[in-house]
Amino acid sequence: MPRNSEHTVSAFDDDIGELRALVSEMGGLAETAIGDAIHALIRHDLETASRIIDEDSRIDELESEVERLAVRLIALRAPMANDLREAVAAIKIATVLERIGDYAKNIAKRVPIFDHRTDIEPLSILPSMAQIVQEMVHNVLDAFAARDAEAAKLVIERDSAVDDFYDSLFRALLTYMMENSHNITQSTHLLFIAKNLERVGDHATNIAEMVYFAATGDYLDDRLVGEAPALEAGEPEA
Amino acid sequence: MPRNSEHTVSAFDDDIGELRALVSEMGGLAETAIGDAIHALIRHDLETASRIIDEDSRIDELESEVERLAVRLIALRAPMANDLREAVAAIKIATVLERIGDYAKNIAKRVPIFDHRTDIEPLSILPSMAQIVQEMVHNVLDAFAARDAEAAKLVIERDSAVDDFYDSLFRALLTYMMENSHNITQSTHLLFIAKNLERVGDHATNIAEMVYFAATGDYLDDRLVGEAPALEAGEPEA
Repeated sequence: MPRNSEHTVSAFDDDIGELRALVSEMGGLAETAIGDAIHALIRHDLETASRIIDEDSRIDELESEVERLAVRLIALRAPMANDLREAVAAIKIATVLERIGDYAKNIAKRVPIFDHRTDIEPLSILPSMAQIVQEMVHNVLDAFAARDAEAAKLVIERDSAVDDFYDSLFRALLTYMMENSHNITQSTHLLFIAKNLERVGDHATNIAEMVYFAATGDYLDDRLVGEAPALEAGEPEA
Repeated sequence: MPRNSEHTVSAFDDDIGELRALVSEMGGLAETAIGDAIHALIRHDLETASRIIDEDSRIDELESEVERLAVRLIALRAPMANDLREAVAAIKIATVLERIGDYAKNIAKRVPIFDHRTDIEPLSILPSMAQIVQEMVHNVLDAFAARDAEAAKLVIERDSAVDDFYDSLFRALLTYMMENSHNITQSTHLLFIAKNLERVGDHATNIAEMVYFAATGDYLDDRLVGEAPALEAGEPEA
């Protein structure tokens, strides 16, 4: 197959463009699902929760489409190194976005547990935490589309704010449970929801590392990515 | 590049063999790390816990090696459809195994929270739960190495036993917390550990789906894979 003819190059550019568009679409759906799930939780909106659960299958379908297209691109067009890294990154990013969609679905499934009368103060922190992780997902996909390694690094730096949110929520919920054992069941569910959001932040960080590698061919310095600090009692990560 | 010369075919077989060996090595390390982490937890073995945390970087390195080799194989050897699926599956499986290694590390990080005097009855359930998920990881990688779609399906069937373990642990820990608020901190950590094991089971299931697709070119019927049941209060999934 002639690799350098104008015809082939242009078909290749079309494929890469389509691949980026699919990844963007997936990211947009996953990002929106996270935000909608938290709002459904706060407003006890069972209808939205149910819609999020149904629509997750679209994210799953897109994952398969990304994979098929990336594989076709690698197999038929024998891309050069940086395009190859981008195609492989697309496969891996799609896997992570599918997982983020699952977290949104899991949060939506918990909506029925809480009702309008639920008055757990830590609940009010969740929307701000959700907003940060949504922005992280949004920004890291912009960075992917623009092959912008520096923008990917900025996403990683935001993850510590998410971890801080999680740590204070964890402590608040623990205190809340200790004060009254009737709070334990709902607090435990909130703990898992907070943990889900924290994991979305971790996943956005994972994507940022993939984007950085795809754009530069280098692995990000571990000191920037940052290992989780050694665990202390009361500051869990799971 | 001559694709059908004996020389190339044999080099290709070497690469696929090396790829399988790397994925196997990763899987072996991840599987062992999970079992060791739970035993360190039960025996309050801080030394083993610390070793698991250190050795996780080897799993991370292997992920990069798998990716490099799979990409080289796809790019240089233009494999046929089923070999191509296997190479792509290797990239995706390595991502999941890296995550399983992280779960083992997270469990190991919680070991210092518990001591010899910890006498939480639900703790005694963890080794059996860990054993099932270890076997799932082990068996699904055997299925990958053998391109055995049926063996992959058997792994998926075992995941409901893991979910059952998790559900009873969740309920036992909730009761335990309600009985005495002094139990809340440790119980919460145990809840996350149980959740980590449950997630390893989910990940083994994800790998099984990838193995099935790599071996057959078909996606597994969703009815077999099984959506998580609709959430009921007291039976969370996160």
